Amino acid sequence: MSAPFLLNWDDISLLLGQVEVHDSMKQAFIEYSKGNAEIPPVGELLFEDPPGEVHIKYGYLKGGSHYVIKIASGFPNNEEEGIKPGQGMMLLFNINTGLPQAILVDEANLTDLRTGIAGAIASQTLANSDLEVATIIGSGVQARYQARCLVDLMPLNSLMIWARDHKKAEVLMDDLSDLNITIKIHNDLEALVKESQLIVTTTSAKTPIIKSDWVQPGTHITAVGSDTPEKCELDPKLLAKASIVVADSISQNKLRGEIYQALKANCLSVENLIELGEVLAGTKLGRTGSNQITVADLTGVAIQDLVIAEAVYRAKLSN
Amino acid sequence: MSAPFLLNWDDISLLLGQVEVHDSMKQAFIEYSKGNAEIPPVGELLFEDPPGEVHIKYGYLKGGSHYVIKIASGFPNNEEEGIKPGQGMMLLFNINTGLPQAILVDEANLTDLRTGIAGAIASQTLANSDLEVATIIGSGVQARYQARCLVDLMPLNSLMIWARDHKKAEVLMDDLSDLNITIKIHNDLEALVKESQLIVTTTSAKTPIIKSDWVQPGTHITAVGSDTPEKCELDPKLLAKASIVVADSISQNKLRGEIYQALKANCLSVENLIELGEVLAGTKLGRTGSNQITVADLTGVAIQDLVIAEAVYRAKLSN
Repeated sequence: MSAPFLLNWDDISLLLGQVEVHDSMKQAFIEYSKGNAEIPPVGELLFEDPPGEVHIKYGYLKGGSHYVIKIASGFPNNEEEGIKPGQGMMLLFNINTGLPQAILVDEANLTDLRTGIAGAIASQTLANSDLEVATIIGSGVQARYQARCLVDLMPLNSLMIWARDHKKAEVLMDDLSDLNITIKIHNDLEALVKESQLIVTTTSAKTPIIKSDWVQPGTHITAVGSDTPEKCELDPKLLAKASIVVADSISQNKLRGEIYQALKANCLSVENLIELGEVLAGTKLGRTGSNQITVADLTGVAIQDLVIAEAVYRAKLSN
Repeated sequence: MSAPFLLNWDDISLLLGQVEVHDSMKQAFIEYSKGNAEIPPVGELLFEDPPGEVHIKYGYLKGGSHYVIKIASGFPNNEEEGIKPGQGMMLLFNINTGLPQAILVDEANLTDLRTGIAGAIASQTLANSDLEVATIIGSGVQARYQARCLVDLMPLNSLMIWARDHKKAEVLMDDLSDLNITIKIHNDLEALVKESQLIVTTTSAKTPIIKSDWVQPGTHITAVGSDTPEKCELDPKLLAKASIVVADSISQNKLRGEIYQALKANCLSVENLIELGEVLAGTKLGRTGSNQITVADLTGVAIQDLVIAEAVYRAKLSN
């Protein structure tokens, strides 16, 4: 009975080169949508002064080796203290005994990474396949992860960027320069959306920033910014206009994210929703025409945490 | 920004001599009942093969220094593998930044300890004050903690024990021999209950083992065994018969434990419930007559985990 691994973010970073989770992440979404996962509702703690929020996501795949508990917090005022706003850890336990196996003090970085990978999988699965350009909305951590994971998965030759703060967009462009593809900053969001066929939204907006009218036929949008009942990046009418609206977890998206907002605005009915895992499994159709508008709304599911935590754990075991 | 402490149960055990939490535990119950705590509903994962359950309790006191997340699992088949059935950890985070401060891999022992302490506080608060004898029902881990914490807090000179399995009762008696008080095993539960004035129930019974008729005027019962919607140690009629029924958390006991069962059986109404913190604060009356029957139903609240985890953390800091 050995003690659990305790890895901090530096330790984890060194292992990431050996971590390849695209296939296992897709498989986990498939198993989840087949009903082969136990994922209770997200636990949440909110703080007022200083403001902060903690999300606890947990669950397991039936027949799997581990259960996962993931704690991810956001305390925006941390930046004033020189501390990263995102903090937390992923905990991996033996599914047969409850013994802790790994304590990954990832400072929420693994959450950012698995969100990036899931976003790229959704974009690749639902966007037209011949695209060479992707548009990233926002300039935060997730803009970086979405850009990198997308370039990793799709044969893109350029990225378009829009952010409310032009200076932050410039820093983002600079941070992504090692990708060796063309990156352009746009200042006119409406014009940019109108010429985009693949858009990834990564902001923490609480009122929609992308209007339904702007979105042209054939466009796919992956929305990853909104993971609470309050946040909202897309005009609810856009979800009514879309041919296909894909959730990572219908049960969860009914309570948070763009889908929650569109349901509340009566722009959508639950019956028309499909899950990413169903599209990946081929049990539901994804895009069936190049002119369709498709939307993927990702709020983040504990199976993603399970997949990335297990991958890091296995990489550590084999070292 | 230092790394969090990682302490295993051996490390924690060595610190427990410096840990005194009676006052802070009482204060935490008081603050909780005043509404000064944020304690979301308990998170739960259930496993079928092998059977197991995980409870996630979390929360914070307003104005406090930390938020806590406590993971406690029970996998009964572990014993066949020579592994302790209870496993888990308590996690302490800075309430202003989310930075992890302590990772206490306590194998669920701190949960057992804080449950013992809370049970003893409830028993001391509600039982007649001149008692010299207490009755412990059950022979598991919690029978030991309740006995030890009770003897620590009340001037008892003897303990009565009943357990379904006489051999286990003998082992329990042996394990408690260092307490240096008289300990007797009874085989007739009905006769024992009839002569008891303070009873602590610690079993995982799923059908009531203590009948309402057996319980004599003046008796106090602290029920700590049932912490799920399924478990039940007390005849629901006993809660109707009692002058006072005390919950550790009314919101939680409405969903789990003896109170849940009695509400379901229409033997109790929520309006008549009071909380331990209200009695401790003096805002609600506890026992007002020596002939009253009183019942405390404790399902375990995250503030208890917060108190014990903070105490261990402070002990470590001062070492």
